[in-house]
Amino acid sequence: MAEAAARPVAVVIGAGDATGGAIARRFARGGYTVCAARRNADKLQPLLEQIRAEGGTAHGFASDARDEDAVAALFDDIEGRIGPVEVLVFNIGANVQSSILEETARKYFKIWEMACFAGFLVGRKAARCMAPRGRGTILFTGATASLRGSANFAAFAGAKAALRALAQSMARELGPRGIHVAHVVVDGAIDTAFIRENFPDRYALKDQDGIVNPDHIAETYWMLHQQPRDAWTHELDLRPWMEKF
Amino acid sequence: MAEAAARPVAVVIGAGDATGGAIARRFARGGYTVCAARRNADKLQPLLEQIRAEGGTAHGFASDARDEDAVAALFDDIEGRIGPVEVLVFNIGANVQSSILEETARKYFKIWEMACFAGFLVGRKAARCMAPRGRGTILFTGATASLRGSANFAAFAGAKAALRALAQSMARELGPRGIHVAHVVVDGAIDTAFIRENFPDRYALKDQDGIVNPDHIAETYWMLHQQPRDAWTHELDLRPWMEKF
Amino acid sequence: MAEAAARPVAVVIGAGDATGGAIARRFARGGYTVCAARRNADKLQPLLEQIRAEGGTAHGFASDARDEDAVAALFDDIEGRIGPVEVLVFNIGANVQSSILEETARKYFKIWEMACFAGFLVGRKAARCMAPRGRGTILFTGATASLRGSANFAAFAGAKAALRALAQSMARELGPRGIHVAHVVVDGAIDTAFIRENFPDRYALKDQDGIVNPDHIAETYWMLHQQPRDAWTHELDLRPWMEKF
Amino acid sequence: MAEAAARPVAVVIGAGDATGGAIARRFARGGYTVCAARRNADKLQPLLEQIRAEGGTAHGFASDARDEDAVAALFDDIEGRIGPVEVLVFNIGANVQSSILEETARKYFKIWEMACFAGFLVGRKAARCMAPRGRGTILFTGATASLRGSANFAAFAGAKAALRALAQSMARELGPRGIHVAHVVVDGAIDTAFIRENFPDRYALKDQDGIVNPDHIAETYWMLHQQPRDAWTHELDLRPWMEKF
Repeated sequence: MAEAAARPVAVVIGAGDATGGAIARRFARGGYTVCAARRNADKLQPLLEQIRAEGGTAHGFASDARDEDAVAALFDDIEGRIGPVEVLVFNIGANVQSSILEETARKYFKIWEMACFAGFLVGRKAARCMAPRGRGTILFTGATASLRGSANFAAFAGAKAALRALAQSMARELGPRGIHVAHVVVDGAIDTAFIRENFPDRYALKDQDGIVNPDHIAETYWMLHQQPRDAWTHELDLRPWMEKF
Repeated sequence: MAEAAARPVAVVIGAGDATGGAIARRFARGGYTVCAARRNADKLQPLLEQIRAEGGTAHGFASDARDEDAVAALFDDIEGRIGPVEVLVFNIGANVQSSILEETARKYFKIWEMACFAGFLVGRKAARCMAPRGRGTILFTGATASLRGSANFAAFAGAKAALRALAQSMARELGPRGIHVAHVVVDGAIDTAFIRENFPDRYALKDQDGIVNPDHIAETYWMLHQQPRDAWTHELDLRPWMEKF
Repeated sequence: MAEAAARPVAVVIGAGDATGGAIARRFARGGYTVCAARRNADKLQPLLEQIRAEGGTAHGFASDARDEDAVAALFDDIEGRIGPVEVLVFNIGANVQSSILEETARKYFKIWEMACFAGFLVGRKAARCMAPRGRGTILFTGATASLRGSANFAAFAGAKAALRALAQSMARELGPRGIHVAHVVVDGAIDTAFIRENFPDRYALKDQDGIVNPDHIAETYWMLHQQPRDAWTHELDLRPWMEKF
Repeated sequence: MAEAAARPVAVVIGAGDATGGAIARRFARGGYTVCAARRNADKLQPLLEQIRAEGGTAHGFASDARDEDAVAALFDDIEGRIGPVEVLVFNIGANVQSSILEETARKYFKIWEMACFAGFLVGRKAARCMAPRGRGTILFTGATASLRGSANFAAFAGAKAALRALAQSMARELGPRGIHVAHVVVDGAIDTAFIRENFPDRYALKDQDGIVNPDHIAETYWMLHQQPRDAWTHELDLRPWMEKF
């Protein structure tokens, strides 16, 4: 592990989708050992192979970010075997809509558990690793719903608003301890299989740069991590030039 | 029940504290049959007696607002025995602070469950009662933390931000269906036993009107419910004249 | 003037339109001597007559709120001849849209001068009158544009955002000196001749309470002025139940 | 002028201070011909010499950004003699505080004229140049006061809030026309002579990276201009790690 130990470590939670995968690749290209986690580690294989094919270093972990013990074990394993975690990216979403009249308690809870509670668990654990070292970067992925509760989005907006409050609270507590906490509001459709399959009209805007390229989101995360500590950004938005807002 | 049936019904969830109690009394004085609920119904007795002594009508219910079945049963009982619910007030808070490094998963969850999930359960159930009738008022109590995640308030700010997103989403969906959903941001200490015992210096400002009188909060809830539907307020703040903000 | 001297005084700047007129009438009905000002005092006659016909007391003043000396003279005249100003309402708008590419410097300036600078002049003068007495209420009328700069609304949104910043700054400085400063965001069409003539489809929603009744705005201003100082609202919104937001 | 004509042009209005100067240098290093303007062109000489010493191309212009004709002449001159303007940076501030009771009408106006009206004039003129070409970047410098009106900052907060509304309105109108409009909120003291001389305690935090390095602000402006159009940022904040917010 000598090679890996020399490299700083970036943990990406929610590396299964286009955005998380792009962020993982970007940090790998930047010289980081990427530790990518999702519930089903098999699904991480294409990403890991892609990173390795580009000459990067990556490890896959089967881990449920909603499970406190699993999160602790994941980070302890990484810190013990691979190296100190310098970057955490939390990128789990759960963009599901429903009328408040039809929303189920189970779904309302699940959306919060995935999009917010898991963020608390991994954010807290990362902070516990980083605080004694007085350095580190924690990046949360937000959405339009982080800023407003639109009709039929009570569950998703609630989870994202709570995640944003978490990011703010952590930034205010941990900034003065040397940890950079930032929140990225992605406002617009992202170039994913989900959009391609479910919103073909929207996806067709890709030719005009009307949907967000995950690699460009990833570049922003990389930029945030590179910021010197006298000029940290806590929050920024990203949207296509033609997006209404 | 003839007397009660003729009166409109206001349900107050979280009627145990000073604010919820004051709101219950205000709606009782306004001619509403008040249905006050908390986990331990015994603790509601002083409030119920006070309302009755003032000539009002009130019923107490032992109910856990975090329990979906209990919430359904509560509203079904009220609608069946007492009358259609015209007003719901959700007033459960959980203002506890903690460093993110020390926060427990259990406490983070509990605070969300009490201050947000219970609000979803009762808000949804009230909406289901009200939507077919095309009328009703749903009022949520917010706090400074609804608007910003301060250091050491990740859990409380997360729950309150999510509750605010719920209120926004419900307002946008249910407003056009005739249901008035509003969110009241109370910014400042309230005249409660908690403040008197734990923050005596703050409490001493009472002589100068430096802490909020629960009766004045209650008056605001009453005013919101009285607003004609061409001029509804979705959000307002309340704070003492001398409060920094 | 004995009769007038005994009554508290409310000054309404921008009493020419439906909203300002309704506010003036409301304070007159509440026992206030209303001092209504606009550039052309002749146009105030119908309002003054209406107030007097209802048994109220009102005075009209020709005054340009954008002129520092005129504003000073107006308040000095009122304080000298009629009585101490207890309430100031600033209600001048200038809702004009334009592409940024077409906007003229003259119009951009005029909109700011009317909707913001005049608010500064009368707000500052009222504050100077009220501060030594340690009491008073200053109410500013906002709009959707106070909160966001929509396309083609750079001038109006700039003026309204600046007026809102003025209201916030004054509230933070003057609240602890006993002066209640509040900002009312009216989001939606108001029942005015302007809407009737220019947006007939919108106006047709009046039958369904889809446009705001100025009397209901006025009731809100009155309510804000009545708030006890331990529970002041700084900002609230008003919109019809069916308004998208 | 062949050499200059081949390079894209960046105009920096308010290049007199540390931040504007650093931005000018950054774009010069990035291959831009920098056109720096301030009222007194003599004061630009050190900056121009510095840029040239680093191998960059820069031109200085004496121009008053509050004067519509002067702004038009400035851009026409640049577009005619040097090349099409691809980037505009507006960086004029006016951070002066005053009690609302003491604020003069003249100062309130001047602060708005410098920090907002000048921004409108140059932003509009740049937009008029850029719109037919369907490309360009317009960057506005904001401050903490852009977001809230603190006590004693009515004038500065009003001007900055209005400038932010301008940036929002322009972004919403001009984004779909290919022009990237962004607003940078600098929250914290910047390493300037003004801070060094007037706030020595604050300045002493420089050793700990507690004040913002203008070169790091400049890097952010450069990054914003480099963003591909499928992932544009409209607003971000910048502050030192130890800054309270």
